[in-house]
Amino acid sequence: MILPLGYRYSATYAGIRNVARDDLGLIVSAVPASAAAVFTQNRVQAAPVKLCRRHLRASRGLVGAILVNAGNANCATRTGDRVALACCRAVGRQLKLPISQVLAASTGVIGVEMDDKKILNALPQLVAGLNDTRFPDVARAIMTTDLVPKETAAEVALARGTVRIAGMTKGSGMIHPQMATTLGFVLTDARLTPAELRRILTRATESSYNRISVDGDTSTNDTVVLLANGCSGLRPAANELGKVEEGVVTVMETLARMIARDGEGANKLVTIHVAGAANADAAARIARGIANSPLVKTAIAGSDPNWGRIISAAGNAGVAFDPSKVDIEMQGTPVCRGGLAARFSESALKQKLDAPECEIHFTIRGKGKGQARFWTCDFTEGYIRINASYRT
Amino acid sequence: MILPLGYRYSATYAGIRNVARDDLGLIVSAVPASAAAVFTQNRVQAAPVKLCRRHLRASRGLVGAILVNAGNANCATRTGDRVALACCRAVGRQLKLPISQVLAASTGVIGVEMDDKKILNALPQLVAGLNDTRFPDVARAIMTTDLVPKETAAEVALARGTVRIAGMTKGSGMIHPQMATTLGFVLTDARLTPAELRRILTRATESSYNRISVDGDTSTNDTVVLLANGCSGLRPAANELGKVEEGVVTVMETLARMIARDGEGANKLVTIHVAGAANADAAARIARGIANSPLVKTAIAGSDPNWGRIISAAGNAGVAFDPSKVDIEMQGTPVCRGGLAARFSESALKQKLDAPECEIHFTIRGKGKGQARFWTCDFTEGYIRINASYRT
Repeated sequence: MILPLGYRYSATYAGIRNVARDDLGLIVSAVPASAAAVFTQNRVQAAPVKLCRRHLRASRGLVGAILVNAGNANCATRTGDRVALACCRAVGRQLKLPISQVLAASTGVIGVEMDDKKILNALPQLVAGLNDTRFPDVARAIMTTDLVPKETAAEVALARGTVRIAGMTKGSGMIHPQMATTLGFVLTDARLTPAELRRILTRATESSYNRISVDGDTSTNDTVVLLANGCSGLRPAANELGKVEEGVVTVMETLARMIARDGEGANKLVTIHVAGAANADAAARIARGIANSPLVKTAIAGSDPNWGRIISAAGNAGVAFDPSKVDIEMQGTPVCRGGLAARFSESALKQKLDAPECEIHFTIRGKGKGQARFWTCDFTEGYIRINASYRT
Repeated sequence: MILPLGYRYSATYAGIRNVARDDLGLIVSAVPASAAAVFTQNRVQAAPVKLCRRHLRASRGLVGAILVNAGNANCATRTGDRVALACCRAVGRQLKLPISQVLAASTGVIGVEMDDKKILNALPQLVAGLNDTRFPDVARAIMTTDLVPKETAAEVALARGTVRIAGMTKGSGMIHPQMATTLGFVLTDARLTPAELRRILTRATESSYNRISVDGDTSTNDTVVLLANGCSGLRPAANELGKVEEGVVTVMETLARMIARDGEGANKLVTIHVAGAANADAAARIARGIANSPLVKTAIAGSDPNWGRIISAAGNAGVAFDPSKVDIEMQGTPVCRGGLAARFSESALKQKLDAPECEIHFTIRGKGKGQARFWTCDFTEGYIRINASYRT
């Protein structure tokens, strides 16, 4: 993976999680980077989310470092604000950054006090370990119930050279689209203003993180940060901004798909395509309704081409459509035509549904131009096993 | 169980479901009964739902018989309307009722053509089997993934005598509150007008069927019918209507709780009490948000007092509240005070959570008067097992 210029990374085990696996990560930019971020829309917001908002305002969108921990969400905690602030202050001191240029992010259990001493004690080692290749170590340190680390990169060729974009993210439960979902960090060495980054991030989030669901639960800690430090020396021309945005979208959609594929207990990545809705929002609502239906997701787990559950879930999405105009395909096989059963070989389709990737096309006939793509996973006994005992 | 006067019941196996278990039921009133009904709000509606609406309009709220089948939802089918009508016409002919006084209800798989010959062939036997004690046989015939039949009754003492109310219903999946959920039939021998019944049913549905969830999926076939045939000879006085409504509410809340308790794969009935919200609607939305969270429901399955998931789910309900004013109790044990962890014995509470009934109290401190009660079940591997292979 080719990483953007001008960033260093480190990870260590601070003792926040019970198992001795890295739980603390640090991302540092060589120069203060332009930054944009999106956060959870849950009414209950973790201390680091509130702190990030304040710091981005105070720094006018400049970020020098991001400290991130797994194992504790630092949410609904007495000492949350103080702990988040103390950790950022310590990072700032060690890296000679104004505290407002340090962001914090946390993921893990809610409602358990976080011990800042563990983090402060681990900081010297964390900073000493910084180098420009340890991107994958941070991606591993932020994993909770994730089975695989999630990272991807893209290069964008501009007239005067190439800029790089790299992103990392985590899953795997409490995943539901509301602005941003989970944690995600996307870095580029292009030179962009915070205002440009905000526009790019908002649009890219809409087609990536806002289009995935694992279980319909939105976390209290969701944070996606996009940094641009300009270390490539390249500032995209006005007519090249679109290309950079495409690169960011590619990285973020890939990360989002990785989250859905590694949903808790999931065996299959499910892609839902909706077309022919009145507008894009209506299409997204139908797609989300299908993606959130436990009955659709368990049917996929059982390789059962039970399209009745798909049309029923769409019917609950709060969007008006005529069921007799609906065509549904699963794995390219028509299963429903005009709202009625299509003729298909059940056994052949069952076999196709055993694949690790499933595609559902839900099309409303007519003149509607609204389209949406949405990613989710199948719903297996593994999800229950993981979540009936996650905390203990 | 003391049944209301003037109703007869029958059930038989018509061959609609694969296993030889009664799948066809009939409820007949000795005289045309006043009727009210509520139906699913899914955009995709089964043929019998559409037929019931038409018949209730045409008959001005009079019903002589209800034909109900399990094993096929008669939804998204080419022949659905014709089949539902043919069945009602045959029942009307055999019972000498106008076709508009016959209702039909179906539950089962969506998108598979229903063979009306099976039903028409079984009708003579079904009608021959009618008597005034076979209420439980119909309750059993409408079961799908239900483990137990669901029936309950109440008596209401009026000034000049007693009237009786009996109800039956079914679960166990695609259960989510939207007007009515699943199938429910509530019968009384009080004399009431269709308009009175509609008012009673609307209010009673709000506090019963609209307050349960198993999996957040709303069926295409949900139907709850309330009949009053007057066979007790008693017409409640104006000031006694409230007592009758209370009786109906008691019966419907009991049925609703039975559905939640017997949710697919469920081991536990979970009752969620919300208090202190701005108004009743806000309270209901918070309660529903908690009840629909897979993470809360899996934690209950694992007897894990993970209150962070409860406050996070409430935060996603789309209702404004101050997290620092929230108190949460599980099984009477305070687990969260003012949005923060309370001190409690985890092992003692885990043991309490092993009980077959769990109570969650979510209280917002302050002057809000909004309250709501909501029933759901825990979420276990059994749900997945059942639904990954329901159709096949």
